[in-house]
Amino acid sequence: MDRTLTLSFSCPDASGIVAEVSGFVAQHHGWITEASQHTEHDLSRFFMRVEIRASSLDFPAEEFSQRFTPLAKKFQMDWHLSDSAHPRRVILLCSKQEHCLYDLLSRHVAQDFRFIVPCVISNHESHRKVVEAHGIPFHHIPVTPENKAEAYQKMADLFRREKADFIVLARYMQVLDENLCREFSGKILNIHHSFLPSFAGAKPYHQAHRRGVKLIGATCHFVTPELDEGPIVEQDVIRVDHSDTPESMVQLGKDIEKVVLARGLRALVEDRVLLAGNKTVVF
Amino acid sequence: MDRTLTLSFSCPDASGIVAEVSGFVAQHHGWITEASQHTEHDLSRFFMRVEIRASSLDFPAEEFSQRFTPLAKKFQMDWHLSDSAHPRRVILLCSKQEHCLYDLLSRHVAQDFRFIVPCVISNHESHRKVVEAHGIPFHHIPVTPENKAEAYQKMADLFRREKADFIVLARYMQVLDENLCREFSGKILNIHHSFLPSFAGAKPYHQAHRRGVKLIGATCHFVTPELDEGPIVEQDVIRVDHSDTPESMVQLGKDIEKVVLARGLRALVEDRVLLAGNKTVVF
Amino acid sequence: MDRTLTLSFSCPDASGIVAEVSGFVAQHHGWITEASQHTEHDLSRFFMRVEIRASSLDFPAEEFSQRFTPLAKKFQMDWHLSDSAHPRRVILLCSKQEHCLYDLLSRHVAQDFRFIVPCVISNHESHRKVVEAHGIPFHHIPVTPENKAEAYQKMADLFRREKADFIVLARYMQVLDENLCREFSGKILNIHHSFLPSFAGAKPYHQAHRRGVKLIGATCHFVTPELDEGPIVEQDVIRVDHSDTPESMVQLGKDIEKVVLARGLRALVEDRVLLAGNKTVVF
Amino acid sequence: MDRTLTLSFSCPDASGIVAEVSGFVAQHHGWITEASQHTEHDLSRFFMRVEIRASSLDFPAEEFSQRFTPLAKKFQMDWHLSDSAHPRRVILLCSKQEHCLYDLLSRHVAQDFRFIVPCVISNHESHRKVVEAHGIPFHHIPVTPENKAEAYQKMADLFRREKADFIVLARYMQVLDENLCREFSGKILNIHHSFLPSFAGAKPYHQAHRRGVKLIGATCHFVTPELDEGPIVEQDVIRVDHSDTPESMVQLGKDIEKVVLARGLRALVEDRVLLAGNKTVVF
Repeated sequence: MDRTLTLSFSCPDASGIVAEVSGFVAQHHGWITEASQHTEHDLSRFFMRVEIRASSLDFPAEEFSQRFTPLAKKFQMDWHLSDSAHPRRVILLCSKQEHCLYDLLSRHVAQDFRFIVPCVISNHESHRKVVEAHGIPFHHIPVTPENKAEAYQKMADLFRREKADFIVLARYMQVLDENLCREFSGKILNIHHSFLPSFAGAKPYHQAHRRGVKLIGATCHFVTPELDEGPIVEQDVIRVDHSDTPESMVQLGKDIEKVVLARGLRALVEDRVLLAGNKTVVF
Repeated sequence: MDRTLTLSFSCPDASGIVAEVSGFVAQHHGWITEASQHTEHDLSRFFMRVEIRASSLDFPAEEFSQRFTPLAKKFQMDWHLSDSAHPRRVILLCSKQEHCLYDLLSRHVAQDFRFIVPCVISNHESHRKVVEAHGIPFHHIPVTPENKAEAYQKMADLFRREKADFIVLARYMQVLDENLCREFSGKILNIHHSFLPSFAGAKPYHQAHRRGVKLIGATCHFVTPELDEGPIVEQDVIRVDHSDTPESMVQLGKDIEKVVLARGLRALVEDRVLLAGNKTVVF
Repeated sequence: MDRTLTLSFSCPDASGIVAEVSGFVAQHHGWITEASQHTEHDLSRFFMRVEIRASSLDFPAEEFSQRFTPLAKKFQMDWHLSDSAHPRRVILLCSKQEHCLYDLLSRHVAQDFRFIVPCVISNHESHRKVVEAHGIPFHHIPVTPENKAEAYQKMADLFRREKADFIVLARYMQVLDENLCREFSGKILNIHHSFLPSFAGAKPYHQAHRRGVKLIGATCHFVTPELDEGPIVEQDVIRVDHSDTPESMVQLGKDIEKVVLARGLRALVEDRVLLAGNKTVVF
Repeated sequence: MDRTLTLSFSCPDASGIVAEVSGFVAQHHGWITEASQHTEHDLSRFFMRVEIRASSLDFPAEEFSQRFTPLAKKFQMDWHLSDSAHPRRVILLCSKQEHCLYDLLSRHVAQDFRFIVPCVISNHESHRKVVEAHGIPFHHIPVTPENKAEAYQKMADLFRREKADFIVLARYMQVLDENLCREFSGKILNIHHSFLPSFAGAKPYHQAHRRGVKLIGATCHFVTPELDEGPIVEQDVIRVDHSDTPESMVQLGKDIEKVVLARGLRALVEDRVLLAGNKTVVF
């Protein structure tokens, strides 16, 4: 794999942005391997993502940020540069259900998309063995009505100490507290087991069964203090019929939950997800 | 196509129903070409649908109802027998949008599933020519705040006079009045342009765009006096992304609206849809 | 709808293409509403498509070609400019099956994507009425083993006289002759009722049934002298199971055939399809 | 979970089969929780699957086979009875790729569908740790051109000793030898990384890339001595486009490979798969 720099930004819409950004890269003989752009008209805001082969530039990759800053300032960009030499650090949180955890561990082993898992945190001991078989530290942090504040404090400490770029709730069955949501805003990804906005809240498969829908879904979204209301990153559905019970829906749903979460995480660690108000641009 | 009798029923759950029904058919040398059954546990109710080749029976098809009645009574069945020699009569209602109407006309021409269209009713003149090119009578019944009662009276008269088995709202943009919904309960099929229960009511694609969902849907359901709350017959979804506007969603959505409505109608005219409270069993 | 210019091209891969093209547009204050690019590494070839709002340019739309020519030459572009003020002219060919024809007529009425149908040609009279109800001329050109050459000559004359940009075989059941394929290379779109390369040739649903596949498909591709071997533009599939017969597959398949063909045509008339050897880039 | 008996059979088509089978169950007060039937007309063969709650019968579950035998003989059934009290034993074979193995281990942990994994066999050591973390024995059996016969002998011994009901090739990258295929005919399930019959043989994603298809697929099928020609149990596809390389297709394909294999295995251990010549009936 060649070393790659990924530049992503949003800024007030204006003419000439693409020309100047691609001009900057071209002037330094940079090879753009992928480029995407989008204008969000309601916000008059422009979004762009560019992947550049690091070795093609006529300056060291480490200098990109500094050299690009004037252009970023000119267009008032909210921008981010990431370097494939420094993969993202993703902490996984899980409870008793195994499917999302196993799926992400499997992808971590394959490195089909690159990410580091500094540790796994769970409110149960169930998955310690399999996590540790991967050489990944496992932290058991029980959460009870009494110790909640303290437990979330411990987690926040781990997030900071491990320099987590992202936190993934891989069917973690506790509601995070507001402070965590605020401090790590735009960094915590959740998988909800319904096709939001339908069936927000608890027991979505039971709600779906009661309403008699013919498809059930899963939604990967950013966590915000408002439960199940955060920006949606990815969704998918699977067909059910009258013979399905809430229990069989729970089972069927796992197959989309894990895929939808993984697609969301991949987009995130590859800098494909940009926030646009309460929505996302996913390049 | 061989002549086929289709028996469909629901009844209180009990043991031995399948044995007695299939025994009755076997005893008369009937050839069952398709059979489906389901128990709705919440309602303790059993549902069954059986297709029988008419020519295989040792009595004339016309006698089936009379001969089956004792069994139907024994199990307190809510039952229906239909005969492929008498295809269902389906009145189509449309407004200005063309996609569902053209799709159903195309299926009517093909007779992939069999139904008769005694007439098309619209609150606009737009589609008169194409409907009449099929030899189908076209009735223009404008609906205004002032003439509403009268207009719906006219429609009800047509429904009755034409002996409609079913009425299909093929993107008909008027809300039917309660009396119509009541009188023709279980006979009126609508296509709603969202994945219900999300985005019920007006302008669902605009609601979907605002929420930033990654899939949009369509729902075929029975019309009840409660808007968009009737039993769901069929649903499907299609992928959208950040580059879609409400307008492009409207266009994309057409491709699922027409398919979902057609699948719903097919199930209906083939006696595959049985009501189970506010849900459907679709065999 | 604003007037739009769409520039699409491919050229030998080189650095700086995006910068120069977007620089040219920016320098004339052009507003790019959509842009896509792709490098086909096997061919060392670069592909790009740019939509520009015509009114934003500081010169008349009519001058774009002339002004852009030097840049096109510099990069040895194989390029095309189209103008939304001049929608593409698409001749439809059909036989007895109705589903693709009705679907395209419905889209023509809606103009969700813009195209003109100068005429419909068929080897059967079946659909004359419905075509003429749209005010579209209908030409019945029977094709027999004896009159083949003459029939295809007539068609070629119509294609030329009507200045067809594209010809769509909407389940047209005759194999076009080589001369037609050659003269209108890259302009004739076909829908094949299988997921190519599986089940090329005749009766694909029967082949699929024999092999016991669990999904059947449809493929929209360019027509070349080699039957069913042309570049693929779009494909999709639909689920079947053991209870399906070849006949029911034929019926089910219609629902994907028409959608796949329509998506292919839309991409074509919007200049989203670029040829890359025997493959396509579809932006 | 209630104890369940599952009866599945095929037999020459005749009238009265359903009536007699359901009559037998009803006469012993058996509660049928699921029933499916199908006639394969080309073979004049009837297929049926019935799930019965064991506790509802008026005789011990252990006596079912003996009591049912006369009926089975009468209709010349090829039949099988399975008992949820004795879950199926499934040996997994894998190589270096992890996705199918992890997915099946995850399902084994969850027991969403019930199966026992007596051991995992691999021609590589890669996954020993994670397998053993589940308390499942891991056998490393390298396969080289020289030791092939001996290696397959070892495997056959394990299959027999562990009383495997089924063997799953979870992306096992060696071609099994003919003797194994013959001895364990109808018991070995493979996942092929293409939408068969397209792209049989080696490197299907590279073949797919070369042909420019717009969807790639995966096929779960029984292993027969003819490579990639065995009866198909399940298939699915995923969308790709011009920007995908063979390498990215390999990655994308994993998400369908594992789901398709798991669905196939589930159907198998639940006695939903019946062979009908070179095709399958999947209830």
